[in-house]
Amino acid sequence: MVNGSYQWRFKARKDLTSNSGITVRGMLSKLHGAIDANDPRPTVNLGHGDPSAFPSFRTTPETEDAIVSAVRSAKFNGYPPSVGILPARRAIAEYLSSDLPYKLSPDDVNLTSGCAQAIEVILSVLSQPNANILLPRPGFPLYEARSAFSHLEFRHFDLLPERGWEVDLDAVEALADDNTVAMVIVNPGNPSGSVYSYQHLQKVAETARRLGIMVIADEVYARVVFGTNPFVPMGTFGSIAPVITLGSISKRWLVPGWRLGWLVITDPNGILKETKIVGSIHGFLHICSDPATFIQGAIPKIIEDTKEDFFKNVVDKLKQAADICYEKLEDIDCLTCPQKPAGSMFSMVKLNLPFLDDISDDMDFCYKLVKEEKVVIIPGISVGLKNWLRVTIAVEPSSFDDALGRVKSFCQRHAKKQ
Amino acid sequence: MVNGSYQWRFKARKDLTSNSGITVRGMLSKLHGAIDANDPRPTVNLGHGDPSAFPSFRTTPETEDAIVSAVRSAKFNGYPPSVGILPARRAIAEYLSSDLPYKLSPDDVNLTSGCAQAIEVILSVLSQPNANILLPRPGFPLYEARSAFSHLEFRHFDLLPERGWEVDLDAVEALADDNTVAMVIVNPGNPSGSVYSYQHLQKVAETARRLGIMVIADEVYARVVFGTNPFVPMGTFGSIAPVITLGSISKRWLVPGWRLGWLVITDPNGILKETKIVGSIHGFLHICSDPATFIQGAIPKIIEDTKEDFFKNVVDKLKQAADICYEKLEDIDCLTCPQKPAGSMFSMVKLNLPFLDDISDDMDFCYKLVKEEKVVIIPGISVGLKNWLRVTIAVEPSSFDDALGRVKSFCQRHAKKQ
Ligand SMILES: Cc1ncc(COP(=O)(O)O)c(C=O)c1O
Ligand SMILES: Cc1ncc(COP(=O)(O)O)c(C=O)c1O
Repeated sequence: MVNGSYQWRFKARKDLTSNSGITVRGMLSKLHGAIDANDPRPTVNLGHGDPSAFPSFRTTPETEDAIVSAVRSAKFNGYPPSVGILPARRAIAEYLSSDLPYKLSPDDVNLTSGCAQAIEVILSVLSQPNANILLPRPGFPLYEARSAFSHLEFRHFDLLPERGWEVDLDAVEALADDNTVAMVIVNPGNPSGSVYSYQHLQKVAETARRLGIMVIADEVYARVVFGTNPFVPMGTFGSIAPVITLGSISKRWLVPGWRLGWLVITDPNGILKETKIVGSIHGFLHICSDPATFIQGAIPKIIEDTKEDFFKNVVDKLKQAADICYEKLEDIDCLTCPQKPAGSMFSMVKLNLPFLDDISDDMDFCYKLVKEEKVVIIPGISVGLKNWLRVTIAVEPSSFDDALGRVKSFCQRHAKKQ
Repeated sequence: MVNGSYQWRFKARKDLTSNSGITVRGMLSKLHGAIDANDPRPTVNLGHGDPSAFPSFRTTPETEDAIVSAVRSAKFNGYPPSVGILPARRAIAEYLSSDLPYKLSPDDVNLTSGCAQAIEVILSVLSQPNANILLPRPGFPLYEARSAFSHLEFRHFDLLPERGWEVDLDAVEALADDNTVAMVIVNPGNPSGSVYSYQHLQKVAETARRLGIMVIADEVYARVVFGTNPFVPMGTFGSIAPVITLGSISKRWLVPGWRLGWLVITDPNGILKETKIVGSIHGFLHICSDPATFIQGAIPKIIEDTKEDFFKNVVDKLKQAADICYEKLEDIDCLTCPQKPAGSMFSMVKLNLPFLDDISDDMDFCYKLVKEEKVVIIPGISVGLKNWLRVTIAVEPSSFDDALGRVKSFCQRHAKKQ
């Protein structure tokens, strides 16, 4: 019996070792691994949802000040309550209420470690034997990964590119059965770049009510809109069907690394409380880790002190990028952008394979692109849509131009000879 | 069909709504709810593991400075890699290696949102159909709560108060079967206040090797020792059986609210890598939220800049508190402290019910105590040991005296007439 020849009884969970490519994070690290180290050009990453490292997308000094004074106060070194500290919950309740036809209470707000943990919380609470949940396609793959981990069955409904990526509500009705408990919508859309109208969101709520399910509204990109539709929170229709609203400061304040998000009960009729879903959420939060207390402590100042100018400036830059992206892609035969992005930080672009010579699919496109041009783009398959691409528009304008130029030469080089 | 009369299809998870009392956090909030608001005396909480709010237990200015410069640098606003940023992992690898007979690599270190998330990670990875895990009694109830949530069967071995709370290794051997994958030890001990000897830890490793299981070593109280045994990390014996070491800055730096912990592979033979446990851990981290990036960014400075004086000062205060606690309890007939605490921030105290008149058990004791004296103590049942109490010694010295005085009058008032 030498080292290693013992019989060790523990075993790896295969579902965890094999699925790391499922998340965008996993895909990104695979693509980065394929970069040619001898190519002297800078890598341009159009695959992320995190522009915070670019000078044009740096958060405000006020936001940093809020953290510094929270740390210096030494009032926030201890454990927070599992739902989060009251001043932060109150500030978020007020912030979100300004967009809603009713007033949220601080008790409706649960703080989480980013919107990612809010997703973990609600999917964990809903995962029960036989239950299923309806997810959008294309979507944000953490929903699939977390559902799979929790053994919560998921079924996909399509978002319709030709209808501005609206939910295919007939498909939702057809997919649902007695065991369906919720449907997820992401608005503003990642990866679609769409912003839903008031009317469409109302129809989503009516469909949910008819089916007896709740709506999980991922609004991590809330208010990051630059098209014609204003941002309407799903909670507006919380009296039609109960809504759970997920969000964070990650995107609007450009601080995804700060890990401060929320899960909010936007359900003025109190159905989620009555059915003890709220109690289950609280129970689960008891066994979860929390966002750092002093970041919670900074939230009231972060919300209060950030100037409208900052938000407007970011949104203006995204609007310009959306215009550039749309125009430049019109010039590339093998790529089609069915809709100019109107919100979030992404554009979905269709790959026209018949125009390409030696590219078998979106994955092949992205691997060859990163190898030949050092441009990282997430293949549509990673967000549920084969032979599409998800292009990030939130990058430093100069490198965005450069990157689209490289994409163009790549496409020309691989174009089918006519 | 009016509001609320629809048939909603979602259901609460009963295991989550009902078990919130299982965690120490849940118990604490129940006891706080029982406080008499008309009693003008200050509440003294001897139930927490978080003394950071007391002036005597404030963290150092250097630690706060490290956060401030990380935030001001604006280098840490973005998402971190799921295992954590390299400089932080490198700093922790070096910090822990100084106590070990081999050198850790940064790749052995995974950053987590406190030690609590490290527990979540390893229990999630180990939870597989039929697998079971061995947990200490008394223990830290998050292990039970997380195992239950993950449907991982747990079995308890006793810690033996008459042997300095050492592991009953015969019981471990008797409990284990072919489906046992790991055993947990908490050293320095919460709630036991014990610090294991080199020899005992070696025997733990040898037992684990014989059984073919890994050791999960919760060292969240690492180096917080003030008795005769020095702190020996379990990883010292990682070449006997693979060890996973869990820790955080929460306790030693007195910043539990900062939520920065680690899960470290202390396994010089690489068994956990070979058996793909490490791969499963990485896979799981891909779908978890992370500790805030700028707190990760502050770690190298936090570890480097904190002066030995600070640690010594804290440990001296705990030693004094342990002495006071032990002496004062000697004076109270109905309470016995079998061993003076030598590490962590707790003392386990036995309740001698025959000396008490109208107290039915530890829970009854704690509820009546908080009502009558505004002193919060966690009943032993919350940490697995009925008719014991877990007393926190990490409180401001003046209020500690006061609290022990109140416990004494409570006990005298309820003493059986002889
Ligand atoms: C749709 C969507 N939901 C949730 C998240 C996670 O957000 P957070 O950084 O707040 O955890 C993201 C991040 O990209 C996202 O795009
Ligand atoms: C034994 C033990 N493990 C883990 C934890 C959690 O530590 P952290 O605050 O780093 O999440 C605690 C906290 O009290 C503890 O006592």
